[in-house]
Amino acid sequence: MQADVDRPVYTVEEWCVTEPELRLDRLPQSESVFALSNGHLGLRGNLDEGEPHGLPGSYLNSFYELRPLPYAEAGYGYPESGQTIINVTNGKLIRLLVDDEPFDVRYGRLHSHRRQLDMRAGTLTRTVEWTSPADKRVKITSVRMVSLKQRAIAAICYDVEAVGDPVRIVAQSELVANESLPDLGKDPRVAAALESPLVSEEHVANGTKVILVHRARESGLRMAAGMSHDIEGPNEMACESESSPDVGRLTVSTRLEPGQRLRIVKYLAYGWSSQRSRPALHDQVVAALAGARHTGWDGLVAQQRAYLDEFWRGADVEVDGDSEIQQAVRFGLFHILQAGARAERRMIPAKGLTGPGYDGHTFWDTETFVLPVLTYTHPRSAADALAWRHMTLPLARERAEQLGLAGAAFPWRTIRGQECSGYWPAGTAAFHINASIADAVVRYIDATEDERFEREVGLELLVCTARLWRRLGHHDLEGVFRIDGVTGPDEYTAIVDNNVYTNLMARRNLRAAAEVAMNHPDLAADLGVSTEETASWRDAASAMLIPYDERMGVHPQSSGFTNHSRWNFAATKAEHYPLLLNFPYFDLYRKQVVKQADLVLAMHLCGDAFTDEQKARNFDYYEGITVRDSSLSAQTQAVLAAEVGQLELAHDYLAETALLDLHDLAHNTRDGLHIASMAGSWSGLVAGFGGMRAGHGSLRFAPRLPSGMSRLAFRMRYRDRLLLVTIRTHAATYELLEGAEIELVHHGERFTLVDKPVEMDISPVPSRPRPSQPVGREPLPRRADPSVRTN
Amino acid sequence: MQADVDRPVYTVEEWCVTEPELRLDRLPQSESVFALSNGHLGLRGNLDEGEPHGLPGSYLNSFYELRPLPYAEAGYGYPESGQTIINVTNGKLIRLLVDDEPFDVRYGRLHSHRRQLDMRAGTLTRTVEWTSPADKRVKITSVRMVSLKQRAIAAICYDVEAVGDPVRIVAQSELVANESLPDLGKDPRVAAALESPLVSEEHVANGTKVILVHRARESGLRMAAGMSHDIEGPNEMACESESSPDVGRLTVSTRLEPGQRLRIVKYLAYGWSSQRSRPALHDQVVAALAGARHTGWDGLVAQQRAYLDEFWRGADVEVDGDSEIQQAVRFGLFHILQAGARAERRMIPAKGLTGPGYDGHTFWDTETFVLPVLTYTHPRSAADALAWRHMTLPLARERAEQLGLAGAAFPWRTIRGQECSGYWPAGTAAFHINASIADAVVRYIDATEDERFEREVGLELLVCTARLWRRLGHHDLEGVFRIDGVTGPDEYTAIVDNNVYTNLMARRNLRAAAEVAMNHPDLAADLGVSTEETASWRDAASAMLIPYDERMGVHPQSSGFTNHSRWNFAATKAEHYPLLLNFPYFDLYRKQVVKQADLVLAMHLCGDAFTDEQKARNFDYYEGITVRDSSLSAQTQAVLAAEVGQLELAHDYLAETALLDLHDLAHNTRDGLHIASMAGSWSGLVAGFGGMRAGHGSLRFAPRLPSGMSRLAFRMRYRDRLLLVTIRTHAATYELLEGAEIELVHHGERFTLVDKPVEMDISPVPSRPRPSQPVGREPLPRRADPSVRTN
Repeated sequence: MQADVDRPVYTVEEWCVTEPELRLDRLPQSESVFALSNGHLGLRGNLDEGEPHGLPGSYLNSFYELRPLPYAEAGYGYPESGQTIINVTNGKLIRLLVDDEPFDVRYGRLHSHRRQLDMRAGTLTRTVEWTSPADKRVKITSVRMVSLKQRAIAAICYDVEAVGDPVRIVAQSELVANESLPDLGKDPRVAAALESPLVSEEHVANGTKVILVHRARESGLRMAAGMSHDIEGPNEMACESESSPDVGRLTVSTRLEPGQRLRIVKYLAYGWSSQRSRPALHDQVVAALAGARHTGWDGLVAQQRAYLDEFWRGADVEVDGDSEIQQAVRFGLFHILQAGARAERRMIPAKGLTGPGYDGHTFWDTETFVLPVLTYTHPRSAADALAWRHMTLPLARERAEQLGLAGAAFPWRTIRGQECSGYWPAGTAAFHINASIADAVVRYIDATEDERFEREVGLELLVCTARLWRRLGHHDLEGVFRIDGVTGPDEYTAIVDNNVYTNLMARRNLRAAAEVAMNHPDLAADLGVSTEETASWRDAASAMLIPYDERMGVHPQSSGFTNHSRWNFAATKAEHYPLLLNFPYFDLYRKQVVKQADLVLAMHLCGDAFTDEQKARNFDYYEGITVRDSSLSAQTQAVLAAEVGQLELAHDYLAETALLDLHDLAHNTRDGLHIASMAGSWSGLVAGFGGMRAGHGSLRFAPRLPSGMSRLAFRMRYRDRLLLVTIRTHAATYELLEGAEIELVHHGERFTLVDKPVEMDISPVPSRPRPSQPVGREPLPRRADPSVRTN
Repeated sequence: MQADVDRPVYTVEEWCVTEPELRLDRLPQSESVFALSNGHLGLRGNLDEGEPHGLPGSYLNSFYELRPLPYAEAGYGYPESGQTIINVTNGKLIRLLVDDEPFDVRYGRLHSHRRQLDMRAGTLTRTVEWTSPADKRVKITSVRMVSLKQRAIAAICYDVEAVGDPVRIVAQSELVANESLPDLGKDPRVAAALESPLVSEEHVANGTKVILVHRARESGLRMAAGMSHDIEGPNEMACESESSPDVGRLTVSTRLEPGQRLRIVKYLAYGWSSQRSRPALHDQVVAALAGARHTGWDGLVAQQRAYLDEFWRGADVEVDGDSEIQQAVRFGLFHILQAGARAERRMIPAKGLTGPGYDGHTFWDTETFVLPVLTYTHPRSAADALAWRHMTLPLARERAEQLGLAGAAFPWRTIRGQECSGYWPAGTAAFHINASIADAVVRYIDATEDERFEREVGLELLVCTARLWRRLGHHDLEGVFRIDGVTGPDEYTAIVDNNVYTNLMARRNLRAAAEVAMNHPDLAADLGVSTEETASWRDAASAMLIPYDERMGVHPQSSGFTNHSRWNFAATKAEHYPLLLNFPYFDLYRKQVVKQADLVLAMHLCGDAFTDEQKARNFDYYEGITVRDSSLSAQTQAVLAAEVGQLELAHDYLAETALLDLHDLAHNTRDGLHIASMAGSWSGLVAGFGGMRAGHGSLRFAPRLPSGMSRLAFRMRYRDRLLLVTIRTHAATYELLEGAEIELVHHGERFTLVDKPVEMDISPVPSRPRPSQPVGREPLPRRADPSVRTN
């Protein structure tokens, strides 16, 4: 069964990701790729029968355990306890006994094994034909879904059919808590804390229904998982259910004649709470199960498709000429939807609910990379994610106070809102996350004109983050406003003065807060905002220092950056990347080497602060020292490469971000998908080749395709309009699918879009030499025929 | 017995430190103050009978245990294991039973209890008169010493005398390993590692002699402790000895008539090794005991005094007008001698062998603050300490390689040479320790013209540290040599570019290495040094960037420092100091607030890089932002205050450093003495009011006394001369006690000192306004009559 490492794992299709034969060598990767989630509940793509597995995973958004954060030398304000996502009760399990043999793909003979994620249906389908070691053949079909419509619900439709001979079948549908997991890492204390994190509070079996209630040992959070079943099969069937503290089981025994089928529809429901009682949670899960069973399997399938049809109507992207990118961008949008759709005032983690990577934490990734996509495709989810930030404001205020600051200091990484970063130079010091949140607020308000959000969520987030910047920075002797001692996006440079990205984003934050506060004087007054305070924000913004190196004609990433020694790339071997695993921070920090787009990200998000000439020079300069040791980098480089006319390079970077997980380029897809990179496929296409920028009610495009694409079409929502933009090499067509007329900008030219499509010309881009990257860190060239590419 | 907190603990005497009555409330402090050591073996001033105690402590230089260094987020090059000094077998114990009652100062009636450290005798004498709860009165006198002459040996002369009534006496002289210690701190893993760290390998009792051999569990180091005894008393005495794995015991029973006396002389010997076998160590200790017993108690006492007489002849400092300072400077010199005298190619820890503070590690303190004193008073010990650094060169080379550097990177903190710092921004990044080592080499060579040291130790240390700087820095576009991303002495500013102190010290290092290499071309060639390499050192030195802020007319501590926001001192309350316990590093790092002299230290050690006017301006500027949260700071501020003519302020700072431990000003004397502050008394007097500077064969003085001193006289050694300098308000007298004629400089005026004393005038210093310190951080004003001061 073990296959070539280089053979593609998945077929390239428009709307599906199919694994045509079982790749045990890629099982951990596939568990992430085939993960299903609705943002509230996530199930990794584990095999129904549980084994073999890479990593079993069932997650509930924000259900976490605590673990100690140790320090060799402690310091004031270091968080002492971290939150970490845990594998909750596994309800995916359906084990099968064929005569006397357990169904296990590693034994007997596997005739076929096909798994297919359908991004329009929102289901994962598995079809297997297998002969047991005792020579009994069965055909198994399972279809799994996590309902986007019914937040608490997942369901599995499991069919077994006898082929050739009659077989005795025993199917065990289970709930299992405290599954033993592979190696939990080096620290024995962490392992101890996370081994069997769930303490049983109740277990009950009744008919085909079983409920298990548990509590996380340290965090005290309570959860309930339940299952009930519909069973169809031959007349003679025996069913029994049982429960113990960590196991619930329904056992179905029958005998199938050739061609006869047993069908088990398993309804799964989950709930958790930090406050609700055991009986309340229990009842909540029972109710959710009743609702789902009432809807029935076919009803759930139909709801799922309807939800996704509506999503794709406003979000789909079509790519002609690069079928891998076509698949990848839909795959990315699908997983972003899965991560955000029903998070509903919970965070969107860096890995969604697809794996335990980064402890299940959310970072600035969400606001900076994921929310732009949701804002223009599924705006309600963007609002929900920001509403979650708003809910955590009391903690962020407390943290700001602890740090001697004003306003709110949002955590660099967290699940529930408390800072969980154990290394402050790349944690607490990365204050730019506050600007990301403010920026996401500004973007959402601009894109939706959602007045209620602005009043109830946006204003306070803007005010509190503005207050942070105002206190964090100061005016120096020359009256310039400086922000010293912070860390920008590039984690290979830390604790610097006047990071250009941070200062530009802080400037936007300050101005937006002043503007929104002035628009809501009464609400602002309730927050204690005076006209003196807004004036001081505007003044700080206007005086903001943006360092520029006249000698070299580029912006230093931060004050003094361009004086630093350049990293010795020539002496750095391929196996030395990522550098942080092979070189000390002290050496990385003091040299010109960039982990991820930082100044280049500033040029994307704050483009109006740079001239075209500066953008081109800066881009070339930072290309030479950016190593992309962060998966967040390529998408921004793609966007800026497209903007400065490096279209082929943009295509290369786009492929890197788009195929990161499908091709497991970072070798860690097993830990969960890179949700921000998923967003990068959309951004690379829409902001990159589409040149889409928006702000202050103005929606602009500057489309240009690389040679490898013949057509790019995307849909997006903006201020109650649904737009379709179709780009070909020499022209772009703008179409208004819904909503009132709107003024748009095409390559700097304004036009009004009413009911008829408008076609605008695209002039060819002047050719400039391709910038070079550090030796060995060039992106893979995107070939004309992607089918020859290997995984 | 508990006394007022404010009552002085010790009397002010010229040559002694006396505790006239037992202060149980200051027991932990007194254990440090009364610690005896020869640099190889150290015994805290615990009571003979072991209890009550603050912290029992017996230490062997460089005998350590390993403990894990944990990290919430790990990084490349972080040390995973730390070395920590451990309390070895306690040989100080002599327990006493008076009739049926154990002698314990907390019970019965204590008529008198007096302890006296005699700095000329090198002994600690304790005299007690006590009546037991059963009304039996005894007089106890114990005299303790750690031999400066016989490195492995300590001895106690213990007398008991019956007063009034006859008494039955049982004395138990013990060796106890794995004593239980008070709270070992929060981390349970650390506590576990350090609980019972010693594993018994052998125990044997024979006559009055007992030997215990142990091994440290994790580090594997082996140690042996032995005791033997001379006993004098009434005719009827019973003696028996016994041993078990962790306890050796000699029990002496007798009956004393009133006026009769039992005398036990206890000889203690210690040895340890990482390589030698159990029998070899055992025999070594037995041999040392035999030698000591052969010398006898009176012989040991005589040797001790002779050793100290010779020391004081070349080191004594006399102060008229401030008797506390008089006592303190001798106390400091005594403890510095104790820390360094017989360290002999082992390190000198920050706390000497007086307590477990800082894990028993050595830091840059030794080379920067302690070795200057030893260089001019007991030069052999300075050479030994540097020879130890030389021995650890292989580890420092390895560390440099791990960090991607050249040459040697010495550890920020260590016992045996491996880096043990768990927080790199204030550890690894503090590369200036390498310059401290080079500077100490240069100073020692200048002061001694020790050719052999230069060839065998000095050259290689200079070459390896120069190579480090050459690689650490780089020439920028303008050809300026920069050292980026390092941390200077001020630990409230970290990871900065071009720290002035670091760059000046690196410049000296580079030049000295080039010079010494050229003086020894063959030896240098053996180290691979070419003339091209020395040229590149000279070039880097000449091009060294020393930032200067023209606007403000001061040197910024590092590039950009003076642009930073000033700490809000007005809003910082007294209880917020030390700041590092109450504010996050991120906030300290990005503001103008200085933990300890940094730029001011540069002005002391590299005075020729600054004009007088710059010194005065810089001093004033940094006074305003220096909070002295490090005990290393005051002495440097004292020296520079004196240099810029702020003599009263210098006196205030001198008192702070001099009385730090005698008055327990930092409330942590219990953990061990601040050896560098001990050195500060000498430096404040000799380099401060004496204005002593030396280098390149030139010895210069610029003496000036504060109003509170009428005379300051000090002896020092320089190039085989013994000098006596006597300073009065209007004149200074220079006298050559030993050696050939020498040219000196007095306030810039050269003169030659031959056989007759030379008197030179001192002109009054022009009055300038006293600079101000941060609110509440002013040094205590030195009052005219110190006797009114309280502890």
